[in-house]
Order: sequence, then structure tokens, then C-alpha cells
Amino acid sequence: MSGILYGVGLGPGDPELMTLKAARLIGAAEVISYPALPEGDSFARSIADDFIADNAQEIRIEIPMSRERGPAQAAYDAGAAEIAAVLRDGRDVVYLCEGDPLFFGSFMYLLARLTGEFEVTVVPGVTSMTAGAARARRPLAARSEVLSVIPATLDVDKLGAKVDAADSLAFIKIGRHLGKVKAVLAERGLVEQAIYLERVSLPQEVCLPMSECPDEAPYFSMILMTKGADPWL
Amino acid sequence: MSGILYGVGLGPGDPELMTLKAARLIGAAEVISYPALPEGDSFARSIADDFIADNAQEIRIEIPMSRERGPAQAAYDAGAAEIAAVLRDGRDVVYLCEGDPLFFGSFMYLLARLTGEFEVTVVPGVTSMTAGAARARRPLAARSEVLSVIPATLDVDKLGAKVDAADSLAFIKIGRHLGKVKAVLAERGLVEQAIYLERVSLPQEVCLPMSECPDEAPYFSMILMTKGADPWL
Repeated sequence: MSGILYGVGLGPGDPELMTLKAARLIGAAEVISYPALPEGDSFARSIADDFIADNAQEIRIEIPMSRERGPAQAAYDAGAAEIAAVLRDGRDVVYLCEGDPLFFGSFMYLLARLTGEFEVTVVPGVTSMTAGAARARRPLAARSEVLSVIPATLDVDKLGAKVDAADSLAFIKIGRHLGKVKAVLAERGLVEQAIYLERVSLPQEVCLPMSECPDEAPYFSMILMTKGADPWL
Repeated sequence: MSGILYGVGLGPGDPELMTLKAARLIGAAEVISYPALPEGDSFARSIADDFIADNAQEIRIEIPMSRERGPAQAAYDAGAAEIAAVLRDGRDVVYLCEGDPLFFGSFMYLLARLTGEFEVTVVPGVTSMTAGAARARRPLAARSEVLSVIPATLDVDKLGAKVDAADSLAFIKIGRHLGKVKAVLAERGLVEQAIYLERVSLPQEVCLPMSECPDEAPYFSMILMTKGADPWL
């Protein structure tokens, strides 16, 4: 009997925004695994830290931050092989995922590699997007509005087209794309309606009107906006 | 000193998908409030049931299921007034929300009515959308795909236009709109790629290929689809 792979969402960063199920599975895990920066920190592991058993075995998967896909995919190949060896040995593995495992998450790369041979259970988590709306105290979308979740990595023409087609918007993966998103919104007179957030739910979180946002944004930042198709007040 | 209003997300239905923070706030609450069907059940209260203190005061807000907005808005007026009286008395109120409070949630109606006078804290929850993707073990969206969350209540032309503009899709609020969504997808040859889900994370949950979905859908159902802009495997 092979072990089960659990892909467990941890929420946006505050450990208290973990689900009861995530806390239970992590606390009971003999083997955990997580993504990490090469020779650097693992945000996922830091969220779960207080729940991990002292004697748990840890499989750390270092993901190179390259714009090419090859190096990261090779890292997932190697990580999946290491996880597979544990599963074949009949032991479960709990893989820690920032936010939700399948909402723009990298867990899909392990799922794709391991789902054929092994049983995989995915535990959803709170996304940074809904945590951002909670922090801003603004509805993400209401009634019959369409909410579009837009990676800021798109080029400026695609970004513009997606903004024009949407009612409510959440831009994610801002980082070095902040200037581009700002320009797209400014061109359409939408900056005043937008909210900038970074590191939501962590002690260093930021929540500002877009018009006051900093010049540089970290990867864990987002911009939320209701274009006003259906005013909520 | 007035009390604080907490809008607390409960997740999609399985009580174990509640966050640690939600469980703590509900367990400590002297006054809870929640939406309910007129003379009927409260799904929100049923999720939180095991965590509510025996002696907690309960403010039940019955929301008429009318297609006109007037009756529901009047119910929120009355409910907000009842909550406001408790808050003015210096006591906190924990309002229970299915899923996430501000992701197509009705908590915005209380927020709009009470945020001026009172401190409001929103605790995000797991949405049925990410729980659905977890159950189906399929990414909601990946890399630079745009995810559109589309209420099935839109008319057929708007639905079609939104489908054509999107990469990945989540249709929510299916209910009596199932036939319309099916027709829109069939016209575009997209039924084979779609997954139908209902009552995700509850014992009676359903997860089927769209081509095998039932003829009638409950309100708590959804359809997830990747159009294939960016294959994940």
C-alpha cells in the first residue's frame, strides 16, 4: 500500500488563517515537504512552523527563480521523485502550499507528476485575494458581477483588454509589473477606485489607496478594484 | 466603547475547513448572528454549530428568497439595527458567513450599513470555488491565465461574451441557470472540458464531468473549466 500525498493550503500568511484540517494534518505528519528559495527561506514552512512535529522528516524542494521554465520544472522532477520514494515506502507526505494549492499555485506541478501512481488529496486554503478584500473591507465582487483574476505578468495590451472586459478585478503577482498595471489603470481613469495590498495578514502588511502605493512592489502584492458595474452600497 | 462586528468566513461546508481564527472567535462569542431562510435552516449556523457556546445569544436574520431586491434589503435593514443595538451596548457580534464574507457574499450588506459607526473586522474563509478545484484535483488557473468567476445569473449573451474573453472559468450560483450555462458551453464545444460540482466538502457532495451532470442543480453548485490557454500538464 502506497502512502497518500496531501497538498495542503496554508492561507495567506497568518498561521491562524490555516484551516483546522490543515493544522491537524500538519501536526500528525511524519514527512512534510515544501517549496523554498535556493539556499533561502520557505514562506510555506514559516507559516506552518508552530504545527510541524519536532521529529518530522522534511523534503525541501528548492525552486530556482528563473524566467525560463526549464530549471523550475527540473526541480519539480527531482522533488516529485523524492516524494514518490516516500509514498512507495507506504508513508504519507504533507506538502505545504502558500494560499490555496490550486489557485495559481505551484502544487499543480507535483499533482501532474504524481497523480497517476498515487492517491492525492488536496485541502483548500484561504487565498491572499479574499484575505486582501477582508483587510480592505471591500467586496471582491457582488451579485451578477464577473470577477477577473489577472496575473500582472501579461503584456500591456492583454492587460488592457482584460480590464476592459471585466467588472471587478484582482491583479495578482504584481512585483516588478507594478508600473505596467498602474499605467493601464491610469489610462482608463481607474486608479482612484483601486486598492494596493502587500503581505496581507502578516505583521508587515500594507493596505493603501492605489494612488498612494509605493514605487516598488514585492511578489506578494495585489491590486483590487471594483469598476462599478454594480455598486454595492 | 462600542463592540466590534466580526464578519467570519466559515468555508464551503465541512466544519474542518473553517480557519483556526474563525473557530476561536465563534467559540468565544457571546452574541452570534447569521442569515437563515424564512422559517427554515441556516446553512451558516449548521457549519459553525459545534463551536457555538451553549449560552450564546443568537440574532437570526431571515432573508426572503425573492428576485426583487426590496424584501431582502429590508431584512438586512432590520438585522443591522438589531446588531447595532448590541454593538452600542459594548458587546461584540460574530456574524457567520458561508464561504468567504466578501467573495459574492451577503456580508457586504451588513458592512455597508454598519461600517460607518462601528469597527468591523473581516475574517476571510475558504471559498467553495477553491474547495471545488481541490475536490476535482484540477488547477483553477495557472501561470499567466486569467480566471473569470462568472455568476450564472447573467443572460445568455453576456455569459457567452464572458466565456469567449476568459482563459479559465468558474461558474457560480448555478441553480436554475444550469440549462443556460450548458447551452453556452455546448455551442462552443467546451462541455468535455468542464466539471460539475455541488455541495463541495459536505457528505452529499457531487463531482462529475459536465457531460454527466444532473438535469437540475441546487444553488450550491458550480462548473469549473480550463479553456486550455495554458495547459498545465
